[in-house]
Amino acid sequence: MASYSGNNKPSAPPAPDPGEPRVAYPYQPPNPSPYAPIAHSGSFGPGSPPQGYGYYQPPPPTTNVYSSFPLGTHPDVIRSFQMVDRNQNGYIEEKELQEALAWNYQRFSPSTLRLLIFLFRDPRESSSIIGPKEFAAIWSCLGQWRVIFERFDRDRSGKIDAMELRDALYSLGYAVPPSVLQVLISRYDDGSRRPVDLSFDSFIEGGMIVKGLTEKFKEKDTRYTGSATLTYETFMTMIIPFLVAD
Amino acid sequence: MASYSGNNKPSAPPAPDPGEPRVAYPYQPPNPSPYAPIAHSGSFGPGSPPQGYGYYQPPPPTTNVYSSFPLGTHPDVIRSFQMVDRNQNGYIEEKELQEALAWNYQRFSPSTLRLLIFLFRDPRESSSIIGPKEFAAIWSCLGQWRVIFERFDRDRSGKIDAMELRDALYSLGYAVPPSVLQVLISRYDDGSRRPVDLSFDSFIEGGMIVKGLTEKFKEKDTRYTGSATLTYETFMTMIIPFLVAD
Repeated sequence: MASYSGNNKPSAPPAPDPGEPRVAYPYQPPNPSPYAPIAHSGSFGPGSPPQGYGYYQPPPPTTNVYSSFPLGTHPDVIRSFQMVDRNQNGYIEEKELQEALAWNYQRFSPSTLRLLIFLFRDPRESSSIIGPKEFAAIWSCLGQWRVIFERFDRDRSGKIDAMELRDALYSLGYAVPPSVLQVLISRYDDGSRRPVDLSFDSFIEGGMIVKGLTEKFKEKDTRYTGSATLTYETFMTMIIPFLVAD
Repeated sequence: MASYSGNNKPSAPPAPDPGEPRVAYPYQPPNPSPYAPIAHSGSFGPGSPPQGYGYYQPPPPTTNVYSSFPLGTHPDVIRSFQMVDRNQNGYIEEKELQEALAWNYQRFSPSTLRLLIFLFRDPRESSSIIGPKEFAAIWSCLGQWRVIFERFDRDRSGKIDAMELRDALYSLGYAVPPSVLQVLISRYDDGSRRPVDLSFDSFIEGGMIVKGLTEKFKEKDTRYTGSATLTYETFMTMIIPFLVAD
């Protein structure tokens, strides 16, 4: 399922972009309304958001914000977001994202978080903040990439080596040439002369670099020839935002 | 003196690469031998490095290493390097570089230091370390860029704004298109809605990004047309080292 080999030949129709946000949870809540309050034992019937205060007083839902979660978003996702969005304005920034993801994934490093924010944020927003839609997309992407990581971490060490990284990225639709793998891996080389291995955090970081740059390149190589002609200006405006994301 | 306009027209012969290491000190020491010991009042005549121990016992010079400084390197440069190279192995790493540059320049931020090391290091070395030649080149480059920065910081505020950045980079041979300036500047936007301004540290960091990426692009656009055709593999191997430098 190679989608981008970098060779100068027309490629097969590209594999579906593994980065597309999709909700793939085994659990579908019975009433998947974004308005549904967090489950509680109360006197409201199913499916009707609280409009006022009765015997049980839940905090009023900020429906204008939380209706922005895609339909069918798992309650855990919404809950994780709500718990860190302390000022309830519907946006979270890097530190809050780190906390929100720690619940179901882990505490990612700042560079990994910054890359996730950079790749998933709403381009109309000037700051590095994440709203409900973007958070749901990040959560989904991480879930998918975790499945792949665990598939290749056969000995359950929590690490994958260079060859497993190559195969994992291939599973996700990225045919990374050996020379590219080499420069990518070098970042995680601790100079100890032991074979390089990557934690899940590093896998996400390196994988996001591959994902983001590949998508940028593909925007310019619309016929999937494996080559793109770039002006100096295009080249610089494509790349610099990546560098300043760190 | 535009050297790289990004337009699709053959450009004039490029301006001399301002990054070329050159020693441009007003002071030329009377005996510019890299072997010359740090000035001391002793019983040795000018020009003869101490071969043994006499009335005055200076520490034995590690000539095998310090002979690597380019001929004519200012003693301050050598001294700054020596003072931080505690294990005297002829190489310094990021923290030591920060200290060494603090003497004559300032304490640069880690991201600026990493970019300097990435751009100036010996490519044959796998680690991020700097030897005498590279250190002299960094020192020289910073000196040149400081002159330019001070020229455009007319009110001596220690900051330059976006237009001054553009003009400063132009003085250094980089004709940066407005769209590129925009993405570059956005890194230094603190979200306060005040006009963006850059300290010398930020100027060096942003300038090194422009310098490094421009040089990479020019390697592929050898006829200076303003465009380059890149394969996916070339694109990724050019860019990823920049991203992992941070």
